[in-house]
Order: sequence, then structure tokens, then C-alpha cells
Amino acid sequence: LEARIKQSLRKIVGEENVSDSFMDLVVYSYDASDHDHRPMGAVWPTSTEQVSEVVKLANEHGFPVIPRGAGTGLAGGAVPVLGGLVVDLSRMNRILEIRITDRLAIVEPGVVYMDLQNTLAPYGFFFPPDPASGKACTLGGNVATNAGGLRAAKYGVTRDYVMGLKVVLPDGRIMKTGSHCMKTSSGYDLARLFVGSEGTLGVVTEIALKISPKPTEVKTCLAFFPRLHDAGQAVADITGSGAAPSILELMDANSIRVVRARTSLDIPEADAMLLVETDGFTEKEPAFQMDKAIKAMEKNHAFNIRYAKSAKEAEDLWSIRKAVAILASGARPNSVSGDVTVPVSRVPELVDGIEEIITRYGLPYVVFGHAGDGNMHPKIMYDRNIPEEARGIEKAWEEIFVLTTNLDGTISGEHGIGIAKAPYMYLEHDEVERDVMRIVKHALDPRNLMNPGKIDVEKS
Amino acid sequence: LEARIKQSLRKIVGEENVSDSFMDLVVYSYDASDHDHRPMGAVWPTSTEQVSEVVKLANEHGFPVIPRGAGTGLAGGAVPVLGGLVVDLSRMNRILEIRITDRLAIVEPGVVYMDLQNTLAPYGFFFPPDPASGKACTLGGNVATNAGGLRAAKYGVTRDYVMGLKVVLPDGRIMKTGSHCMKTSSGYDLARLFVGSEGTLGVVTEIALKISPKPTEVKTCLAFFPRLHDAGQAVADITGSGAAPSILELMDANSIRVVRARTSLDIPEADAMLLVETDGFTEKEPAFQMDKAIKAMEKNHAFNIRYAKSAKEAEDLWSIRKAVAILASGARPNSVSGDVTVPVSRVPELVDGIEEIITRYGLPYVVFGHAGDGNMHPKIMYDRNIPEEARGIEKAWEEIFVLTTNLDGTISGEHGIGIAKAPYMYLEHDEVERDVMRIVKHALDPRNLMNPGKIDVEKS
Repeated sequence: LEARIKQSLRKIVGEENVSDSFMDLVVYSYDASDHDHRPMGAVWPTSTEQVSEVVKLANEHGFPVIPRGAGTGLAGGAVPVLGGLVVDLSRMNRILEIRITDRLAIVEPGVVYMDLQNTLAPYGFFFPPDPASGKACTLGGNVATNAGGLRAAKYGVTRDYVMGLKVVLPDGRIMKTGSHCMKTSSGYDLARLFVGSEGTLGVVTEIALKISPKPTEVKTCLAFFPRLHDAGQAVADITGSGAAPSILELMDANSIRVVRARTSLDIPEADAMLLVETDGFTEKEPAFQMDKAIKAMEKNHAFNIRYAKSAKEAEDLWSIRKAVAILASGARPNSVSGDVTVPVSRVPELVDGIEEIITRYGLPYVVFGHAGDGNMHPKIMYDRNIPEEARGIEKAWEEIFVLTTNLDGTISGEHGIGIAKAPYMYLEHDEVERDVMRIVKHALDPRNLMNPGKIDVEKS
Repeated sequence: LEARIKQSLRKIVGEENVSDSFMDLVVYSYDASDHDHRPMGAVWPTSTEQVSEVVKLANEHGFPVIPRGAGTGLAGGAVPVLGGLVVDLSRMNRILEIRITDRLAIVEPGVVYMDLQNTLAPYGFFFPPDPASGKACTLGGNVATNAGGLRAAKYGVTRDYVMGLKVVLPDGRIMKTGSHCMKTSSGYDLARLFVGSEGTLGVVTEIALKISPKPTEVKTCLAFFPRLHDAGQAVADITGSGAAPSILELMDANSIRVVRARTSLDIPEADAMLLVETDGFTEKEPAFQMDKAIKAMEKNHAFNIRYAKSAKEAEDLWSIRKAVAILASGARPNSVSGDVTVPVSRVPELVDGIEEIITRYGLPYVVFGHAGDGNMHPKIMYDRNIPEEARGIEKAWEEIFVLTTNLDGTISGEHGIGIAKAPYMYLEHDEVERDVMRIVKHALDPRNLMNPGKIDVEKS
């Protein structure tokens, strides 16, 4: 960190909130992705005004600004790939207002997702999106990546819940946008443009989220399938039946195998598993929905169907699904997780295709995910020190992205583009659309100071 | 219409699809608002490619392009206030795909809202937003204004259902944006930026809408209140209780009076009325929700509570609410309707304030609307040939917009800004936000050819 920049930063955020210590530079080189690059320093602002001053300083000296939440991102969104200053927002972690009647929670970006849920629970309310990293990730990160999770088919994603934002623009000005009302048709929707922009258009410093009454009645059911294709068809049949499960998770044969091998959980040999949850406010509502789902699964050769009779039994069913993500990593030192998504009717083709591709490269993998909204998570293991595997994983992913976009899908359903998927933007977005993205980026951040190298329509 | 322009237009859309006849120019001077201005001509394209060619021609000759659906807009969005060519999209009215499993309907912009609902009904599905003009308005118009309606508190607005768009950009290029997937975090969300942009950023020529299973069980209840304030408090208490009514409509004393006076419907003298609807897929679900609502209304002095025991009875209750909009117009030859919206907890203050303001100007009015999402519709009657009333109504509206924004509200909840509200944008959006809107508009439409004079952040 240059002395005069360090001096200016200390004036803005206080001496104790600036660092370029070796330890901090190393820590801030990483997020939860497979990428890393060292920043020139880091600051911990505690107010919108401080962020604004930091961004003005960045303009003065021309250094990149990398906003960061908890660093749980899987696409490299918080990795300072072109150096610059990490702006760690985790100390802006106040829940400013909970307004039940207005269905609003107003929070700072550093609030941990689960802290908001815990604060809402006594009111009987919740924030419906539910990223798997909920215990650690921040709401600012959820907004930056338009995070989704398990309940998206019924409840939508983060963007559907962002009502208003306070944003520090690339020139340091502070903008309030959106509304605290349940509906607005007043001018351009800048709030949703910033959602999912991964810090490339500005730094979000305040978020007004829509909150919802939390269903009190939940049914949970699990079933196994002799063939993956049957499970995929069951998913399509459930959705096609008009049932609206709150959760509909798929695990493939490898996922089942790893959990069978490494836990004592009671799991049959099977090629696929579905976990279904339905919800409502009276007992019969989720039961009615679950009956539709079970019929669709039975029609597609489901066996060993387990319908939880209590919260305890539901928890046992969940333990199988929850074990996958943790246990699957062991086979190699490194891994890359994806979040490819297709229209629900194409899920069987997507899963078949993914397995065919990865098998061809001979890498260990599992595939699981939110089949009810078409969002699958292939997790491919490899050893970055074995050149053949390092090359293989790159090629396998490229093939998976080609497959996904050929199925009318999106290369990122919920993790964001970051660094990991930037080279593949062209597969999903044609030249005209990428040009309009470029026009918007240039217009708002002409010097490309905000989280450069991410999404990166400049290059793609 | 200049001869060479007319000639070029005929080549693009066919001779029968271009007009500058006196009759057509008069018709296209108006929409459902209080504004009018004559265009230079009109075309009826039937494909995206034709729209693209028309917009390219507009660039060549520098004339404005005014996209138009059914002309039911209440803010002047389809009035060619600076002249130019009306592009009437009502012949692009094909429903291209209904994909139940993928929860998608892909339509052209000229499809009438109700035609989509009728097509979805046999599948047990619906498109949740429900603008009052649904029998006439087009889905393109819904997208342009981010239309809302009665069910927004539970189901959201048009923007929440737009997955993908095809758009003819201001330079004539064709852009596909968004996704056909239930979730995507792939680059900037241009689709939602175009939703609500009122044709000022381009012409939408194809729309992929999310559709939902339609609840089969509905409960309807109506109640009267001795004081408006009680009804407002009941609304806040219902929302605060965690109940999620699908519909929660408020009528003020004038609304009740006009329906009492001019129909034979059985209505008591009252200062306010609430109409509540709840829904679900099993009978007890909406009953449970309605019990919460009734408790909140009883607590706030509701009387003459009517709980429909059949669909026929529900229809009778609805007839009171439906009569208002039609009957209220009689008192003067002209009227202006608004759609101011506030956070739900501020509804009582909003309604009190609106009544105080209009009463001061001595103009006949009614106030009714979607209290459950904070969206009220004051309708003020006047005679445009009485200068005092013409001045009065302008000033009354300005005061209402000041009141609304002081209550943390939005000047347009669902109709759009158009011409009517453009001068008041500054009340809701500060200089920085308007500047960013301006930056986006300049970047995409540097020559201001697309529906100029609407929203109009240029001037505001």
C-alpha cells in the first residue's frame, strides 16, 4: 500500500481499519472459489460515507475497489484478480429496521444471512431465499450475486425481494434507489440492475428487503429411483402437475454412493434420490401438495419412499442431503462447483449430459441440486498439481457450459459469473446483449474501477 | 407523413399496415389518460424484424417512435406528445408457447391480458398480476408500465414474472435478454431494466412470463367501518398479523356513497369498506387466513361483516367494489386517476391526507384501491373548461404527490410515470438517482427517439 494512499485511508476509516499486513493480504487473496490473487490492501468501513470517501480516493489514484462480504462466493467474485483495495463490509452489520406491517427489513450489507432469519423468526416471518452458505454469507453478497438456494422454485431469488438499495456509485456519489413500497412503477428499475452486478457497478451499503410470513406446516418426503432418468422425469411430472413444492432436491448415484460409504445412514443402492418439501399454514395444504408429488414419483418407479411423520424424522431425511456437499470433497485436493441451470423439463438431459462429460475426463464428481428450479450443482474433484487433471477440468466445464446453453439454460443459476464463468458469457449472451451490458458498464463505471475482471463483458 | 418515409414504411410492413389518415391520427392522439397530441402516422408491424426496420428508419430520419398496446394507460405513456410514429403492436398478438413444466408462457406484446388467462385456465395455471384493464390491455403494456393490480401484496407485480425479453433497441438492433430458467445470476439484469421503462429504452417484441398454479380455494369477505381511520388500522393489523390475503381492497366514504346512490345494492352508511380475499389449494388454508383478517377487522370496529358462503355470494360482494370505478366518473366531464403508493403502515395517513387536500380544492372525488399493498387510487373529477377547476386539479395532484413522498411513498405504484407524473419525478428521486437514470437513457438512446417526453429524466 503506497504511503500516501494508506495515510488517506487511515483518515477516512481510522487507523485500526486499514491493513496491508502480509497475513491480511493472503487472507483477502481468496474466497471459496478456486481462484486467488493478492490485493494491495484492505479496509473495514463502518458507514456509507466512509465507503463513498474510499471510492473517491480510488478515483483520485486509479486503483480498483473490490467489495467483499464473507468471502463464501464460489465464482471468484471477491478475489482481487487485478489487485486493488478490498473493501470488507463485514463490519457494516447492523439490522436497521424490521417493519412487519410494511413487510420490510432494512439491513447493512455485512449482516450475516442467518442473523436476519434469527431476528425474523420470533415474528413468524422469514426472508425466503436460502443460500447453502447461509450461516456465513452476508446479505450484501446475496445481493451482489442474486443468490438463490433451495426454495427458489416456489419463492424466487434474492432479486425478487430487494425493494430498495443505497449504493456508492463508481464516482463515489451516494445513490438511494428503489422504494420501500410493495409496488412501484416510477422510472427505471436501478435497484434490480444492481442486484446480481457483483460489485461491478458500485458498492451496496444498505438494503431494503421484502420479508414474508413463514409457513408453519411442512411435509418432507424422500424417495429413491432405479434410474436417474426416472428421477428427472418425476421432477418434470411434479412441476407439470401444478404442485408447488417449496423444495425439490435431486442427488445422483455418486452422491448417494459417497454418503452410503462414509456414513451409517440407512440408504439403499439407487441411481438417484429426490427430497421433497411442501409447506403451508394449515396441515392439509402441504399434505395435498405432497400427495401430488408422491403420485408423480410412484409413476416414475420410485422405491423406498419415506414420508416424515415428525420434525425429527424430517431431520433424518435431510441428513442424507446435507452430507453430500461436505463428504464429496475428499477424493482430490481441489474441486470446482458449478450452478448450471436449465428449464425444468430439460433437467434429465442436463444431468445425463453432465455425467457423460465428466466420466469422459475420468474425474471424480457428484451431481446434486435444486431440480425443482432446474439448478444443478456438479462438483468436480481434481488435483491442480496433475497437469492432465488441471487441463481436464477446464475442458469438462467448458463442455458443461456448452451443453447447458444448448438446453436453453444459464451458465450461472445462483453463484454469479465472477472470474470462473466470465470466459463463457458469450455462450449464453449474444453479441448484441453483451454490447448492451458493456454500454451500461461503461456508462456507470467508465474507468473500470469497480471489481474489474468480474462478469467482464469488456473482454467476452 | 412525408412521402419518402411513408414509402419506406410501406415497404417494411406492407401498404395496408401504414396510415396517416385523419381518423387514425385522431385515434392515436389519445390513450386512457387526460393527455393528447397528434402523431405523424401509425404502423402495425407483425414481426420483430419489421419493428427493427421501422426503428432503423426512425434513426435515418430522426423521428420519434411511440410503441403502443391497447391504449388503456392512465399516465399518457402512449400519447405521442412530441409527434412521431405510433408503432401499434396489437397485431403481434400470438401466444407462442405455453410450457407448464417450465412454468413459462412466451407471448408477443400485443396479446390481450385476458386472452393469456383464458389460455392458461384449462391447465389450472395463471399469470398472477391483474391490472383492472385486463379485458383490454396488452401484455406489452403490462411490461412497459410494470403493471400491478389487486393481487400484488401476495403475488407481486409484472416485473416479478418477466423472465426473458426480445427487445428492438433504439438503434434498431434486436436483443434477446433474460433467461427461460427459473433462476439466473448471469450478468446484468437487462430484462427487468426494460420492464417499467415505458418504451423509452426500446420496443419489447417478445415476452417470456413465469406462470403459477392457480389456487382453487378462495374465501371472500367484506366489512364496513364507522371511520376511515379504523379501516386503515385494520389493514395494518391484517398485514401485521402475518396473514397474507390475496386481495385487500379499500373504499372510502365517497366511493360507498356513489354506489349506494346509484345502484340498488344493499350497502349500509359507512365511512369505509374493506373487501378481503384469501386463497389456497385446500379449503382450510384460505379460511385460516380469513379468520386472522376478520379478527383484525373486528378489533377495529368493523360492522356488517359479510363472509361469502358460495361463489355467487362472493360475486355479490365484488359487485360493490366493481361499481365504484365505473360510477364515480359522472360528477364532471373530466377526471384524473392516480396510483400513489405508500408502505402499508402509512395507508391511514395517506388516505386522510388525500381527502383533506381534495376537499380543500372543492372537487368531487373518490378514493379506493389496493390497501393491502399500500396502493391507493384517488380519482378526481373536474371540468377542463372551468379554469379554476383545471388549475385546482393540477395543484391538488401536486400536493398529493408531496404528501405521498413525505410518507416514504412512490408517485406511481402501477400505472407508470408517462407524461402525467414526469414533472414530479424529482419529489421521489433525488438528483443522483435521476442522474443515473439519465446516464442509462443517454447510453441506450442517445438521440432520444424512443417515446420521448415520457418518464423524462432529461428534464426533471
